[in-house]
Amino acid sequence: MKDDSLVNQLLAALEDIPLIDPHSHIDPRQPVSRSLDDILGYHYYTELAHSVGMPHAPLHPAVSARERVRAIVSHMERFDNTVQSSWFSDIAREFLGWQGEYLSPQDVDAIFDTAHRIFNQPDWEDQVFRRSRLEQIFLTNEFDDDLTGFDTHRYVPCLRTDTLVFRGNEPDVQRRLAQVTGVEVGDWSSWRRALGRLFERFVSHGAKACAISLPPDFAPSCPESQPVFWMLAEFCRDFQLPFDLMIGVNRRVYEQGVYQGQDLFDHRCSLLAYRQVFNAFPTVTFCISVLSSGLNQELVSHAWIFPNVVTFGHWWYSNVPAYIESDLRARLQAVPKTKQIGYYSDAYKLEFVLPKYRMYRRCLARLLADDFVRTRRLTESQAVELGHALLRGNVERLFRVGSH
Amino acid sequence: MKDDSLVNQLLAALEDIPLIDPHSHIDPRQPVSRSLDDILGYHYYTELAHSVGMPHAPLHPAVSARERVRAIVSHMERFDNTVQSSWFSDIAREFLGWQGEYLSPQDVDAIFDTAHRIFNQPDWEDQVFRRSRLEQIFLTNEFDDDLTGFDTHRYVPCLRTDTLVFRGNEPDVQRRLAQVTGVEVGDWSSWRRALGRLFERFVSHGAKACAISLPPDFAPSCPESQPVFWMLAEFCRDFQLPFDLMIGVNRRVYEQGVYQGQDLFDHRCSLLAYRQVFNAFPTVTFCISVLSSGLNQELVSHAWIFPNVVTFGHWWYSNVPAYIESDLRARLQAVPKTKQIGYYSDAYKLEFVLPKYRMYRRCLARLLADDFVRTRRLTESQAVELGHALLRGNVERLFRVGSH
Amino acid sequence: MKDDSLVNQLLAALEDIPLIDPHSHIDPRQPVSRSLDDILGYHYYTELAHSVGMPHAPLHPAVSARERVRAIVSHMERFDNTVQSSWFSDIAREFLGWQGEYLSPQDVDAIFDTAHRIFNQPDWEDQVFRRSRLEQIFLTNEFDDDLTGFDTHRYVPCLRTDTLVFRGNEPDVQRRLAQVTGVEVGDWSSWRRALGRLFERFVSHGAKACAISLPPDFAPSCPESQPVFWMLAEFCRDFQLPFDLMIGVNRRVYEQGVYQGQDLFDHRCSLLAYRQVFNAFPTVTFCISVLSSGLNQELVSHAWIFPNVVTFGHWWYSNVPAYIESDLRARLQAVPKTKQIGYYSDAYKLEFVLPKYRMYRRCLARLLADDFVRTRRLTESQAVELGHALLRGNVERLFRVGSH
Repeated sequence: MKDDSLVNQLLAALEDIPLIDPHSHIDPRQPVSRSLDDILGYHYYTELAHSVGMPHAPLHPAVSARERVRAIVSHMERFDNTVQSSWFSDIAREFLGWQGEYLSPQDVDAIFDTAHRIFNQPDWEDQVFRRSRLEQIFLTNEFDDDLTGFDTHRYVPCLRTDTLVFRGNEPDVQRRLAQVTGVEVGDWSSWRRALGRLFERFVSHGAKACAISLPPDFAPSCPESQPVFWMLAEFCRDFQLPFDLMIGVNRRVYEQGVYQGQDLFDHRCSLLAYRQVFNAFPTVTFCISVLSSGLNQELVSHAWIFPNVVTFGHWWYSNVPAYIESDLRARLQAVPKTKQIGYYSDAYKLEFVLPKYRMYRRCLARLLADDFVRTRRLTESQAVELGHALLRGNVERLFRVGSH
Repeated sequence: MKDDSLVNQLLAALEDIPLIDPHSHIDPRQPVSRSLDDILGYHYYTELAHSVGMPHAPLHPAVSARERVRAIVSHMERFDNTVQSSWFSDIAREFLGWQGEYLSPQDVDAIFDTAHRIFNQPDWEDQVFRRSRLEQIFLTNEFDDDLTGFDTHRYVPCLRTDTLVFRGNEPDVQRRLAQVTGVEVGDWSSWRRALGRLFERFVSHGAKACAISLPPDFAPSCPESQPVFWMLAEFCRDFQLPFDLMIGVNRRVYEQGVYQGQDLFDHRCSLLAYRQVFNAFPTVTFCISVLSSGLNQELVSHAWIFPNVVTFGHWWYSNVPAYIESDLRARLQAVPKTKQIGYYSDAYKLEFVLPKYRMYRRCLARLLADDFVRTRRLTESQAVELGHALLRGNVERLFRVGSH
Repeated sequence: MKDDSLVNQLLAALEDIPLIDPHSHIDPRQPVSRSLDDILGYHYYTELAHSVGMPHAPLHPAVSARERVRAIVSHMERFDNTVQSSWFSDIAREFLGWQGEYLSPQDVDAIFDTAHRIFNQPDWEDQVFRRSRLEQIFLTNEFDDDLTGFDTHRYVPCLRTDTLVFRGNEPDVQRRLAQVTGVEVGDWSSWRRALGRLFERFVSHGAKACAISLPPDFAPSCPESQPVFWMLAEFCRDFQLPFDLMIGVNRRVYEQGVYQGQDLFDHRCSLLAYRQVFNAFPTVTFCISVLSSGLNQELVSHAWIFPNVVTFGHWWYSNVPAYIESDLRARLQAVPKTKQIGYYSDAYKLEFVLPKYRMYRRCLARLLADDFVRTRRLTESQAVELGHALLRGNVERLFRVGSH
């Protein structure tokens, strides 16, 4: 971003908007990091370190946290150009008082100890919420997760359904399902009973969404083709929950990859595969995440045409400014502003909310400046309102959270 | 666009170029709007209003024009970020003397009445032509349209052939075809006779193009696979008419959508499907419109290699500055300047020619400034000449209209 | 590019980096042009001239070089907007002292004679190396090319394997293979012996890579599906040669096109087809070139995840600033800097190294300025180091050339 006072003013105003983060993998019982290992153990760092030559050995549980951090940091210079590396720099500067530019191996001991001290303050979780201007954050819960023992206003449950749809025929999954619902699944009517109990349980614990990630070849063309998926959509309708569809991931493409660093995508994937679902459930809000700009262009048009299709953040391999900016630019120009959920952190630890949202807000501020304020379509304060809709207003309204 | 005097100067020069609009859906007997309902009844507004929550009821013919406009306007704030909304603002400012930024429901009565007064001036059609610097505009005619009773220099007929190719086996279509050509179609030689008479009739009434929109899976791999399509190409060759191929639309994807707001596209579509056609008809100019940037990249390469392939405007879901700019940038850098037809309005009412072309010219001016003048490849006046080729010169030469 | 001192400073620093060009089609015995015909006979000019109307006749060998140049130049004005045309202007200015902007037909005789005089200086080859700051350049050798009689340090052999993989069953190819290896191929073990001898011969003559161009539907899912390709990968592993995969070209799409101006691509092509190969050969560096931005987005993610996948230049139809900038921007933000080979010239004559690399360096300088220096992520000198890695450092390390 160039030295640009308009962009900086917009950015400052966007930074003032308190966040509700509508998708993450936070563990509400361990929401913050306890050591630098929790930060650098994020798959973005382990997979990039592995990609530039780090073997698997340092990732073994028997290796000490300090040693693992040392191993990862010793490979970081090789990917210090990446935006993922810049998230780490942001965390180190914002939360650890670090002053340098890139972390070198000789800095490891000092910063490791600093992190240990800071992360283990008794109010660290609250500090991170406050400094990130975070108010609420959505979880991603397995169907049999315990939903008690944490503040479900702050940590909003969300029913993740990959296991049910893709592994529902496995005895172990059916056993877990019976345990949590009391229903032994067999025929489809028993599945319906079991899923109904799941939804009841989740909604009674404050769940605000149902979610699933889907492979590129998934095609729910009729209820019979994907009965569990179709029933989930029915329950989303009956319980008035948005259904987050995260479309296009291929699992385990790199078989010898590190944990969570094995998946990729196939850009030959179309939303056409979902036409029957979008048509069959007009009252369900489908929040759609995609992995490629080709599919984003389809998404822009689908959200423009289908009342129940909403754009949902910038997911994973698309969560890079080069792609955020081009994808977001098209959304801002062609998708109604009430139908865009700007961003989610996808974080495993709360410390990542701040740098990831900052990256997004920079992209947003630049586009608001160039395409709206400088073209005289919006005043600065109107542009900030548009940003507010994407960052906060639509999350509240569509997921019925916050002040809704 | 930033405050940028070079861009503004280029834009002013481009605005001076009189237009020949090579593709529209104008009805030459009702070319201009008669009420604001004709403006806001454009599918871009009805589908966006519906997308943000407007039910079908206000679109029923029994509802008064004023009520319908009120219903649509009451939903417009929710999509006032879109470029389609900015076309309306441009029309309101340019043609209706409106001073505000966004139209609110309480403005409806006043602007509705203003529009009624202005649109019903006896010379309104001429005024729109003059203010839009429009000289000629192409129509999209069904094969049995009456081509008499209007000025075919101003309103250039164009034979639209979707019905013949995709519904030629329907008795009603064959009956209409017999009525207009005198030929009862049965075997392929009777089809050839019938199509020959259509071409004769259209060309004798000044038709300058043949056109068709095609689904993503259309594959005319040989004459036998798509006999009617193949014969149309033969007649384009024999009658020296360019053949506009508008590639990639899926019809009726959103089944409950508003009229003309049901279609979408599948980005998994390739020009490879047209290789046999491009090879078989070297003397036919194929003007290609596409719906996605992925296909635009193929189009850029095809227009660079095939002498008979020409880029043709920015169609429908691609007709958004975010996509126009990236698609056009590649065309300007890699497609010979004589093989690019810059833009068409696709308008149903003449009032839309001005705002749509203005949007395009802004994109063009910015690219000419950044990629040509600032890199010292072209002087300002040479850049305007390049813009002239896209906006006017190539239309005249390739379609044999204007001063050609 | 705007008047921009930061970009200009970065560009100047990047221009100072001596080049090792890791992919070309140079003939080491005729590396430089001997007449302007060698420049304008490059397929980029013949195919563009043909695309705008030049017939085949001037390309016939019986036509004199001067006449052919005259024919091509007389069509150049029609594609003087293209970046390919700007390469020619650069060559004319840099090497021929030409002062104009676009070459007109009346300039032909003078510039043809100037070129003849300059190109036939006895040290012209050395002059081009020096002025282009070129140190080494890779060749593309057929398996039975004579690898003697030239400086293999300057002209680095590379085994091109298209013929073996796609035409290995042709008697003539098998005969040539027997001639050069002494092995009559029949069963797969004889193929393995023959290929082993080829690799020995190439490596003993300083070959530094194995390369192949692949059609969009190529799918080496297991050794049995593509035995020759799979064996080549095994030998790359055993001989520690990177394997350049140039993915996505469709041959002879435009059947009546000029020589080398008949090929195109299909953007519906995915790296997923290579997952088994990437998994099976973890120690082979796969340098991947692609033809579309959709596939580039997949490549960015694959190079981020797979340790053995490296981005490799900007190939052919993607070698246009509009696509280079967006593709490179994503690479710079998401692919480790050690895993990007920035560029190669793909040149047939050495004179093209300078203008093509200049085009690339301009894109690179602009991105380094906007995304790294202006965002305060890098100082200017760090940004130049990043550029150095892409332009030179990674070529040396990954191909074991230069000072490696």
